[in-house]
Amino acid sequence: MMKVDAYSHILPAPYFERMRELAVNPRALKRWLELPALHDLDARLRIMDEFGEGYQQILTLSSPPIELLAAPPESAALARLANESMLELCEKHPDRFPAFVASLPMNDPDAALEELARAIDDLGARGVQVFTNVNGRPLDDPAFQPLFDEMARRDLPVWMHPARGPAFADYATEDTSKYEIWWALGWPYETSVAMSRLVFSGLFERHPDIKIITHHMGAMIPYLEGRIGLGWSDQLGSRTADEDYRDLLPQRPLDYFRRFYADTALSGSDIGIRCGLEFFGADHVVFGSDCPFDPEGGPMYIRETIRVIDALDVHDLDREKIYYRNIRRLMRMAAR
Amino acid sequence: MMKVDAYSHILPAPYFERMRELAVNPRALKRWLELPALHDLDARLRIMDEFGEGYQQILTLSSPPIELLAAPPESAALARLANESMLELCEKHPDRFPAFVASLPMNDPDAALEELARAIDDLGARGVQVFTNVNGRPLDDPAFQPLFDEMARRDLPVWMHPARGPAFADYATEDTSKYEIWWALGWPYETSVAMSRLVFSGLFERHPDIKIITHHMGAMIPYLEGRIGLGWSDQLGSRTADEDYRDLLPQRPLDYFRRFYADTALSGSDIGIRCGLEFFGADHVVFGSDCPFDPEGGPMYIRETIRVIDALDVHDLDREKIYYRNIRRLMRMAAR
Repeated sequence: MMKVDAYSHILPAPYFERMRELAVNPRALKRWLELPALHDLDARLRIMDEFGEGYQQILTLSSPPIELLAAPPESAALARLANESMLELCEKHPDRFPAFVASLPMNDPDAALEELARAIDDLGARGVQVFTNVNGRPLDDPAFQPLFDEMARRDLPVWMHPARGPAFADYATEDTSKYEIWWALGWPYETSVAMSRLVFSGLFERHPDIKIITHHMGAMIPYLEGRIGLGWSDQLGSRTADEDYRDLLPQRPLDYFRRFYADTALSGSDIGIRCGLEFFGADHVVFGSDCPFDPEGGPMYIRETIRVIDALDVHDLDREKIYYRNIRRLMRMAAR
Repeated sequence: MMKVDAYSHILPAPYFERMRELAVNPRALKRWLELPALHDLDARLRIMDEFGEGYQQILTLSSPPIELLAAPPESAALARLANESMLELCEKHPDRFPAFVASLPMNDPDAALEELARAIDDLGARGVQVFTNVNGRPLDDPAFQPLFDEMARRDLPVWMHPARGPAFADYATEDTSKYEIWWALGWPYETSVAMSRLVFSGLFERHPDIKIITHHMGAMIPYLEGRIGLGWSDQLGSRTADEDYRDLLPQRPLDYFRRFYADTALSGSDIGIRCGLEFFGADHVVFGSDCPFDPEGGPMYIRETIRVIDALDVHDLDREKIYYRNIRRLMRMAAR
C-alpha cells in the first residue's frame, strides 16, 4: 500500500550550511550532527529505501523556527533559501518527495504572505508550516489572521509544529529545563494551547473548512476529550470572574477541536494512535512519522508507526485514507 | 457491584467557613458557591443516593492547596481543621465515606510530617494528598523527601492533585489566562511535569513500592507513551549539552511512569479511559470521578465514569479491581 509520510523533518544541505553560520546553540548543533538523515540526502534516501517504492515523504523544514534564527529582513531570505532547497530535493527525487511545505518568515507578517504566494504559485509548495507561537506571540494574534485567511482561501493545509515561547522559557527556568521536560511535555502542551487559542478565537467560525494539521496527533487533546467536553466546553466561564465567556462560540467548543487534522507522529504508540484515531476519525488522520528523530536516527519511527497503522482494526479504505488518501486530498495532489 | 470513588472533592462546612474568612479570590468563591455538593453535606448525600448503597467516596479536600491559603503556622492549623472535619463526616456516615485522605501544610515541611503522623495515627486517615508543586517548589525538592520516605515506610498512598505554580502563573499571563486554558490544559501539564520530576529524581529507585495516585488518569502520560518511551527514555540527553543524563536511572524511564497509580477522572471519556487503562494496567487504575465539578454539580461525572467502566471490555475481576479492590488494597482497608 502506498504510504505518504505527511510529517517528517529535513534540513536541506544549503539551508543547513546557512544555519550553521548563524548563531546556533550547542545543544541543537550537537543534535543535528548526530542525525545525518536530517541534512544528508544520501543518508535520508538509504533510510527511505528500507520501506520500498510506495513510501514517500512530504518535506517540512525541521525546527527551530526561522523566526528564531533571524530577524527581518534576513528571516525572509532564510525562508526563500529553505523553500528553494526543498523544491530542489523534490525535483531531484519526485518519486521520493512528491511535494514540500513552505516555511515562512513569521516574524515579518507581510513578507510571510509574500513568501506564501511565491512558494505556492512559483515553487509549487502544497501548504505552509507554522509553529505554535511566533517568538512568543500566539497564533490567534491579529497579525497572523491574514495568513490563515489566505490559506483558507487557497484551500491548502497549514502544518503546525510546536515551539517554545519566551513565557514557556520562563517556566522552563523554574521547572522544565531539567530532564528535557520542555521537549517531552512542553511541546505537546504548546501544541494544545495553540489549538485552543485558534478554536476559542473563532478560527473555525471564520473558516469552517480550514485545514490545520497538528503534529503529535493533537498532543493532549484526544486523551483529554472528556475534560475538554464536559469539563471545559460545557462549563466555560465558571472558573472566570473578570470575563464573560458565555456564548463565545455558536457550537460546542469540543466539536471545533475535532476539525483539526492530526498526524500519527506518536513515536509508535499503539494505544496513543488508537485513541487519537477515535478522536479525530479516519478522515482527519494522516500518516506522519517524525522521521528522523528516533533512536536509530531515521527508520525506527517510520517502521513503528507503520506497524501500528497496519495493526489498526479498521477497514482497508480507512487505512488507505490514513496512509495517503487524506494527505493527497488535503494537498489537492490528485488535481495536479 | 461495590464502587469506591477514590477521587472526589469536598470542603467540609467548618473548613469552608474558615476559607471564606481568609482572603479568597472572587473567581474561586463564585465557583464554590455554585457547587453546593462541595460544602453542603445534604446536597452531597442526595447526589450519592442516586448511585445506590454500594457507592462510597474517599474524602479528599478540594483545591486550592492549603499552602496557598495560609502561611505557617496558620497553614498547620488549617490542615488540622480540614482533617478533623473530614473525619467528622466519615464518623457520621461511615457507609458513605469509609475513609479520608489527610491534607498537609506543605509550606511547613516539619509541621506537615507532624500532621501526617497525627492524621494517620490519631484520626485514621488512609493516605495524604499533595499538590503537584508547593507554591512553585517542585515535589522532588529535598525538603519534601522525608514526606515521601514516610509514606513509603507506612505503605499508604499519596494522592497527587494539580496546582498552578508561580512560574505557571507567569506563563498564564502571556498565554493561558485566556479561555481557562490554565485549568483545561495547564493542570494536566503540571501533573505530567510533577510525575516526570519524581521519576527522574529517582523516587521509585528509593521506594520501589511507593503508591502515588495521579489525578486525571496520569494526565498527558498515557497518550504520549511512545514519546516518553522511544522519544524521551531512549534518547535522554540527546537534546541537552550542559548536563549528562546517561545512566541517570538503572531502568528505562518509561517503566517508572507505569508505577504510578491513576484514577479514572477523565470526565467520562471512553477513549481516554481505555487508553489510560492500557497504559497503567488494571492493577494500577482506581475509580475516581472528580465529583462534584461537572455541569450538573455532582452526579454527572460519577454517572458518566460508571458508564465507561461498565462498558470496558475487561474481565469482571478487573472491573472489581478498578471499582474498589485496588483502592481498598492501597489503603489497606481490608486489614482494619
